[in-house]
Amino acid sequence: MLVITNQEIQQHVGAAVVIDAVEKAFAALGRGESKVFPVARGSGSDPRHITAIKSGFDASTGFMGVKAASYNPGNRTRGRASHTSTTLLIDDLTAEVVAVVEAGYLNGLRTAAADAIAVKYLARADSHRLGIIGLGAQAVFEIEAVAAVRPIDTVYAARRAGADTDRFAQAVSERTGLTVEFRDVEDLARQADIIVTATPATSPVLRDEWIRPGTHVSAMGSDNVGKMELPVELVARSLFYMDYPDQSAVIGEAQHLLAAGKATLADLRHRSLGGLICATVSGRSSADDITVFDSSGIAIQDIAAAHAAMTIVRSARSA
Amino acid sequence: MLVITNQEIQQHVGAAVVIDAVEKAFAALGRGESKVFPVARGSGSDPRHITAIKSGFDASTGFMGVKAASYNPGNRTRGRASHTSTTLLIDDLTAEVVAVVEAGYLNGLRTAAADAIAVKYLARADSHRLGIIGLGAQAVFEIEAVAAVRPIDTVYAARRAGADTDRFAQAVSERTGLTVEFRDVEDLARQADIIVTATPATSPVLRDEWIRPGTHVSAMGSDNVGKMELPVELVARSLFYMDYPDQSAVIGEAQHLLAAGKATLADLRHRSLGGLICATVSGRSSADDITVFDSSGIAIQDIAAAHAAMTIVRSARSA
Repeated sequence: MLVITNQEIQQHVGAAVVIDAVEKAFAALGRGESKVFPVARGSGSDPRHITAIKSGFDASTGFMGVKAASYNPGNRTRGRASHTSTTLLIDDLTAEVVAVVEAGYLNGLRTAAADAIAVKYLARADSHRLGIIGLGAQAVFEIEAVAAVRPIDTVYAARRAGADTDRFAQAVSERTGLTVEFRDVEDLARQADIIVTATPATSPVLRDEWIRPGTHVSAMGSDNVGKMELPVELVARSLFYMDYPDQSAVIGEAQHLLAAGKATLADLRHRSLGGLICATVSGRSSADDITVFDSSGIAIQDIAAAHAAMTIVRSARSA
Repeated sequence: MLVITNQEIQQHVGAAVVIDAVEKAFAALGRGESKVFPVARGSGSDPRHITAIKSGFDASTGFMGVKAASYNPGNRTRGRASHTSTTLLIDDLTAEVVAVVEAGYLNGLRTAAADAIAVKYLARADSHRLGIIGLGAQAVFEIEAVAAVRPIDTVYAARRAGADTDRFAQAVSERTGLTVEFRDVEDLARQADIIVTATPATSPVLRDEWIRPGTHVSAMGSDNVGKMELPVELVARSLFYMDYPDQSAVIGEAQHLLAAGKATLADLRHRSLGGLICATVSGRSSADDITVFDSSGIAIQDIAAAHAAMTIVRSARSA
């Protein structure tokens, strides 16, 4: 069993290769070849310490995989990461656990990859102004990934009271070479071609009337019951897609669409990113369409990203 | 992250220490301090290749854990193990994955441990004749574990057409020093003080009328819908206990008790091994009681066994 460390992944694995691997995984899912198993979740002695376990079979790599992601907010006061993540890669043929992959850093890449793939298939080709809402570590990955699929030259980030904007701008600059301009969220929404939301919000972080025709929105924050980043009106009037409709209907933006009676689960089921990649679902039909992608995160992303990391790190070790 | 290998566990970890660790884990579960998360399960490209993921929080060690157990019957023709198993140990306090433990061998020990703990609390103290039904690798672990908690001097194994009885007897002798006597299953059932069933059966492997007063039965085989080793009549008239009633009701012997209308889930819920250890449920009250334990396997066993293995192997490495 190989152990692939976070440090090796940070050193050797870039956004582009993960975007490519995750796109192939979504394509295989769209062809009906892959499987997403039920998510298991529970807490430790502290009810705020949650471990979520995502598992599945990714036909694009021929691996089953299990990701255990733990979240412990108490870690912040201990100077440790609040999230940890580890993926087991299991050979589909032999049932052997081939590698254990430390996936803390990789998780940021794989999540951003899905949002960028949606941008690649849905945003106008000339989109060059990216608006980011959320100033956490994930937002940096999101900017990097979107810049890998569209000619981004302008990054607006939403101001937030008390946030360390200098530190965020420096992190984005170091990682992508792009300069961040801070804006009020309304200005950002009215000017961006692409908006990415990366927040833990439980109510909309922007208003429907701010969104111009032709905008693409990738919403990555909603991954639990009650979480919400987008107004239902915006989702309802957009061309709407999800990484995994059955999960989005429970923990993603789609939960609010269903609750508002604006769609049925049957309506949503065919509006998957995999279907979009395989062209069994149509995408943008005019420069004025508003497109929205709702990402809640699924195991095939973890498996494809971990497999890519394993392949690259193994090769780097023997070089 | 430590990697604890199968080979090190085989070399350093014995049955007694795992029985002790698993007993402490069931006691903590009985006190309501531990948690069992939902089981996730799915298949790879071959529908017969199943991965089952068990996870939970074990208060006796202060660890959360995730075990991925894969089964691929096709491996037999490749000369590989058909089962593989790997456990991640996650520190309850820091959410850090402290160790990845190869759990193929350990799985045999932890499963047998639960059955032996039931024997320790339920079988007559003078029980010395053990009958084993099933001649697979697990049966050897079961004999070893029961012999650790009762003065077993006689082992009967049920004959099975086409089985390699010599090889089984040799494996038992090497591991426990005990000599196996092969018997027809009826003779075995009529003569044993303790019976352990370790089969993949989907219908009863013994008859109710064969079971003498005072017998204890630990049934380890049923761990899926439709599996069954014991006649419903026997389970219904016995003092019946389960490792985890809510799971046994779906995949253990209890599923058939419920289907036959012989019990309700509410009846079963307090009849746990943890409750028996904590004495919140009463055990045997006379030498004539028939006691039955139904084991379907839960994550706290995996966590406690993996933690014990980690502790022992880490200490052996630094010795």
